[in-house]
Parts: sequence; structure tokens; C-alpha cells
Amino acid sequence: MELQLDKQRFIETMQEQAAIGGTENGGLHRLALSDSDKEVRDWFLNAMEDAGLETSVDEMGNMFGRRSGTGPSADPVLLGSHLDSQPYGGIYDGALGVIAALELVRTLNDEDIETSHPIEIVNWTNEEGSRFQPAMQGSGVWAGELDLEEEHATTDGDGLTVEEELERIGYKGTRPAEPTESYDSSLELHIEQGPTLENKGLDVGIVTGIVGLSWGAVTFTGEAEHTGTTPMYDRQDALVAGADLITAIRRLPGSLGDRTVGSVGHVDVAPNSINTVPEEVTVTWGIRDPSDDVVERGRERVIAEAKAAAEREGVTFEWEDRARSSSIRFPGRPVAALMEATDQLGYDGEQIFSGAVHDAAHVAKVCDTAMLFAVSENGKSHTEDEYTSWEDCYSAANTLGNAVLFLAA
Amino acid sequence: MELQLDKQRFIETMQEQAAIGGTENGGLHRLALSDSDKEVRDWFLNAMEDAGLETSVDEMGNMFGRRSGTGPSADPVLLGSHLDSQPYGGIYDGALGVIAALELVRTLNDEDIETSHPIEIVNWTNEEGSRFQPAMQGSGVWAGELDLEEEHATTDGDGLTVEEELERIGYKGTRPAEPTESYDSSLELHIEQGPTLENKGLDVGIVTGIVGLSWGAVTFTGEAEHTGTTPMYDRQDALVAGADLITAIRRLPGSLGDRTVGSVGHVDVAPNSINTVPEEVTVTWGIRDPSDDVVERGRERVIAEAKAAAEREGVTFEWEDRARSSSIRFPGRPVAALMEATDQLGYDGEQIFSGAVHDAAHVAKVCDTAMLFAVSENGKSHTEDEYTSWEDCYSAANTLGNAVLFLAA
Repeated sequence: MELQLDKQRFIETMQEQAAIGGTENGGLHRLALSDSDKEVRDWFLNAMEDAGLETSVDEMGNMFGRRSGTGPSADPVLLGSHLDSQPYGGIYDGALGVIAALELVRTLNDEDIETSHPIEIVNWTNEEGSRFQPAMQGSGVWAGELDLEEEHATTDGDGLTVEEELERIGYKGTRPAEPTESYDSSLELHIEQGPTLENKGLDVGIVTGIVGLSWGAVTFTGEAEHTGTTPMYDRQDALVAGADLITAIRRLPGSLGDRTVGSVGHVDVAPNSINTVPEEVTVTWGIRDPSDDVVERGRERVIAEAKAAAEREGVTFEWEDRARSSSIRFPGRPVAALMEATDQLGYDGEQIFSGAVHDAAHVAKVCDTAMLFAVSENGKSHTEDEYTSWEDCYSAANTLGNAVLFLAA
Repeated sequence: MELQLDKQRFIETMQEQAAIGGTENGGLHRLALSDSDKEVRDWFLNAMEDAGLETSVDEMGNMFGRRSGTGPSADPVLLGSHLDSQPYGGIYDGALGVIAALELVRTLNDEDIETSHPIEIVNWTNEEGSRFQPAMQGSGVWAGELDLEEEHATTDGDGLTVEEELERIGYKGTRPAEPTESYDSSLELHIEQGPTLENKGLDVGIVTGIVGLSWGAVTFTGEAEHTGTTPMYDRQDALVAGADLITAIRRLPGSLGDRTVGSVGHVDVAPNSINTVPEEVTVTWGIRDPSDDVVERGRERVIAEAKAAAEREGVTFEWEDRARSSSIRFPGRPVAALMEATDQLGYDGEQIFSGAVHDAAHVAKVCDTAMLFAVSENGKSHTEDEYTSWEDCYSAANTLGNAVLFLAA
């Protein structure tokens, strides 16, 4: 049985959500638990009720809508993503996976299709982690990877807590923020946020796992000196050591593996004055690879490079781990459902490993989980330039819908 | 004739000024035109009047005190420095040259010594340039290198203008901010702010000139991409190009000249997020050398290195000059007076080139000028750790006093 979602309605619904918190430049500024997040949540709750779903909100603000199944004891299939955005981000990141899930249940309703397993759609709270850290906060608590009270107490830049903001916008629900029953499986559709699908001319990517990552920070400490009066031989320039490490990390992935990536995204320089030799420089780096062994080798190489850079410049260094996550390999059943759906619909799809972490990484601790990627043009994401054609959005949503049908039977 | 300043009184006077705006850690926080600058100015005005000097304040707040000469038409000898400090700076930077000048006239009074030339001591407004830019603002206007109205209109971080703040603290004087007559010569005593005198075991440094400098900024622009999902081959990382340039500039002075210095003191990274490949990085560099030709060659090499770094990483770059000053060579007469005084007092002194720019660079446009350096232990300056022993302070002050006697006869 092959399902075709309602393309026109699907696109219109994507446009509706994009208007809530939409920016002048066609992007989206819808930070977690902000006024525009409340607005899109109200809109989404209405839409779920209009689709006849049984709605609930848990203590972390995660929103669920359930369509009953016919099987007396069949566990639900979970699908969804997140409606919050990065600051001045794009309209597809997160929203595509939620709207595709909504459109699936509408289409099932229209065509009077019953499934054996219940289908539950979800909008996870604060996936982006830009206003409140950490990212993937709602799914992390739900999956038992994060602690409810600790996450309620996290604050934004103005000192407001997650719990206060959940209460303010009316989305601190009563359902426990945990799986209250067994789940059969889970699928998450998301944009790729990288250029691989487009480069290969594919319609969709069947995600077989998520890379492991290691993030850390190296702080070099030298001497603040006057840049005019201090001879070169008498300097301990922390920025030179930092720059040395940055270029070493640029070379590192090429010597580790063909899918390794690594870079420095953040640098702090003190005192950061044109007239003073930099005294303290902190370089925050990340390494990712599908293999945890490669990630660990990369981490050790970064530390060795930092040590060498410090010795060359005569400065001291300290390093600390900032984040660590193991790679995840999705199980065969949900991956097979996505491949079968892709084949059935005649789309070009290939297996791909995700370089970004998603809510699905947490959900995978609870039940059999896999992900589907839609094309990201030029690989752009977390910017207003993020773009996926409606054709590509629809191909991915359709694939997701048919894969769910295989799982929910 | 050999003069010995009153060592005890000189040290006590240094301590008195250091208490005004003094910090817990023994440093000084006395920003230009702040309340503590007003306090030290009031104190200094009193001290000049107590010493029988004819005081005046010009429209830029530069403070003068004149001791008459006996020669009917002999031009005055000018000496002094500045009483403002860096934020949490040291107690010697600037103040040493002003207090030594004050102590000289007191000693001349005590010993009833008359000079043919008048002696004028000065406290220049805003040498440091940390609250209001540019640095050396008062001497720059006085020497005709800066425009009075433009400098009056410069603002601090709170939008307050120099003119408003001069009026508020009562130091917008009526004397024109320009040389109102001819000056015979000028001397400025200042701490070295570098380690050369200490490394060579010298008592004082006779400054024969000030290096030329070129400051500029290079901005690299790449692409902001997700650090997890973007393959290495598909990145244009502006920070890698910036780091490449920083390490190139570390190597540059060694290939230009034995007294060339150069470094990067300031870096801006955008968006500066661990999860995003840096899109825009601005690197602000400076090169100094006694030879203007070497400075110009250094500047050209920086641009060539920036171009090469941009090409290697596939990013674009733009550069701009930020500041440029020609090297200055002090004339023989005041330099000879300082050498003669050093020899007469039996101090170990050597000729040295200044790597920092000082008020004397502006004053040198008006009359024959030279400088004297006191030892800076560990070369530290612009920090609370700045230190010169009282012995070294006194040796330098004494040398200055005797050199003035040679000039003022």
C-alpha cells in the first residue's frame, strides 16, 4: 500500500508555521519558550486537535498527539522533531519533521486508514540549545538522559529558568516527562544541514547512525607585554600557540579518517588589545567521526598538538573536555522501513551517517529509532539562508509517511 | 656642576601621587579626566604652586608650571610626561616623568640655583588613550598634530566628550592649546616598558629615537557551516586563514631586521560558536622598526601572507591600514645632554631606541627633544605588576635633572 500525502496542504502548513516568528529575510527567529514559541505551540495544539488527536503536554513542555491503533496491545510508533529555532535560523530545521508527522495523520484520516499501532506525534522542547543549554533538552529528560529538576533550573541570559518560562507560556504540562509506556519504534525526519545529498543528486538520505563527538577547550597562558617594547625573543604569545593549534586541527581530520571532521569554532583572547601581546587564549575544538575509536584518537592528537604548540611558544597550557558523546548506530528495522518506503516511492536515496546530533539520539535509548534526511541546498542551516525546495520537503515527508505505515502496519 | 635631587622627598612624592586612584594590588586606576584624574591634578597644581611655579592650564587640560630664567630672551626648557594611567595599570608609567620634573624645580629652589632658560614642567592630558582615543591627545593638539575641536568632541564608552569632562573636572583652561612661544628643548623621562635595560644591567637608557609603526587589520570571509555535517573539503574556514596569518606574522620579524617586532594583539571571530565553522575573522596586526623602510616591507609582507592564507583556505580577504607613524630620530643636543649627565653621575647608560610611542613624539615637532628611560623590571607595564625600584626611579630622575641643567644652563 502506497500513501501520498496532500502536497498542497503540506506546503501550506509549512508556510503557516514559518509565519510564526518569521523574519524579514525569510528565516525564523523562534527561540525555545519565547512568545513566538508559545504562539506556534498554540497553533500546533489546535492543529493536532483538529486532526482528532488525543493531545498531552509533559512537565518539560514536550507536546504529544496520539492517533489510536486497532491492535489491542500494539505499542505506539513515535514521530516528530522540534518547532523551536536558532536565532535568525531557517524555517525547515525541526519544523519539517513535525509538520510531516502532522500531515501524515491528516492524510490517514482523509483516507480512513487505520493502523494496528497507535501513531504518536511529538514536538520536543528546546532542541536548539541556543537560549537554554543543553540542546535537545526536552527529549533528553524524556529519555532519562537528563534530570528534570536540573533542566527546569537552567537559565537563559536574563536569568529566567526553563520552569518559569514553561509556566509563563502555559506549557508546563502534567504528563510525566518520561516514556509512560513501551514504544514500538520512532522516526525523525530532519533536514541534512550538510551538502552530501545535494552533491550526490539524491532525494532523501536514510540515516543509519549519528557520529560520536568530542568537544574540548585548550587554554594557553603566556605573558601580557607591550607589543612595541618587548623583543621577539622575550615574548610568550598565547595567541601564537592558539593559532598553531588551530592550523594543526585543520590538518588533523585528513590524517584520521575519510569521514572525520574537526575544527575550532570559538576563540577567546585576553586582553585582546592591538597594543598588548595576548596573555590568555582559549580555543574550543570539536572532532566527530562515526567511529568512537577515531574520535578518541583525534582527541588525543589535539592534546598532543596543544602540548607541542605550547612548548614551541614557551607558554603553558591546560585542557578540559567540554562534551563527549558516543556514536549511535540505528537498528535494522526502522532503517529497513525507510529504505522500503524510498524504493516504493521511486526516490533516489542512500544510507548516510549524521554529522549532527538530534533528538533521535535520545529517543534511540527508549526504542528502535532511525532518521530520514531531506536535502539542504548548499548545506546551509542555522541561518536565514537555509533552503530546501518544496519538492524535496515533500519527497522526504512522503517517505517518512510510508515508512511509518510499514512500522505501524 | 652636579645636582642631587632630594631622594627621600622624591620617593614620598611618588608615593603620594600613587595613592590617588591607587588599587588594592598596588597598581593605579586613574583614567584620563576621571574623578581620580581631577584629584591628582588638584594635588599637582598645589604642589607646583607650593614650589613657586607660575601655573597655567590650556584648553586641552594640559597643565604647565614655569620657573623663571635669568636670560633676558632665553627660551624655556620643557619637561614632563603624564599623570593619567591605563585601567589597572602601574604607578610609574607617566607619573615618574612628572614627579621627577617637580622634584627638579624643588631642588633648584632649595639650592638657590638659577638657570638662564626658564624651566617649564608639564602634565599632558590623556596620554594613555584608553578612555578616550587617540592616545597622546593633549600633546598631539598642543604640537599641532591633532585638531582641538575634533579632540574636544571625542567620546568615551558612555558618550561623554573630552570637552564636557574637562569642564566637569574644572580643567578646561584658557591658555591656547599650542606653543605660545619658542621652546629651547624638551626632555621626557619615562619607564622603558620593556626588558632591555634590565637584561643589560643598565641604570638608565638614553633614547635616541622612536620606532615607526604600521598597524592594520585583515578580515577573512568564509562560509558559516555546521561543524558536524560539513565535509572538510567543503569548508571555507575564516579562522584557519586567520590562524595561518598569525603564525606567519610570528615568523616575520626574524626575517626583516634585528630590531623588528610584530604581532597580532586582537582577533574577532564571528559567529564564534563551537558548532559553526567561523565565517568572518578579523586579525589586527602591528609591525615596528627603527627604519621606516623595514616597516613598509613588513606591511607588504603581511598583505602577501594574508593573500596566501586566504588562497590556501579558499576564503576572501580584505585589508585596511589602521595607523601609521614614521620613526623619529632625536637630535644630538638633548641626547648629548642626557649622555653627559649619565657620565657625570657615574650611571651605566646606553643608547636605546623606543619601541613605544610617547608624548615626546609630538613635542619633537616643536623643539629639540629627547627621552630618558628608567628600568622596567621584567619589562612589565600597563598592569598592576609594573615595577621600578626606587633606586632606579631616582637614578633616572637625577639624570634628567642634570641633563636639564646642561640645557637650561
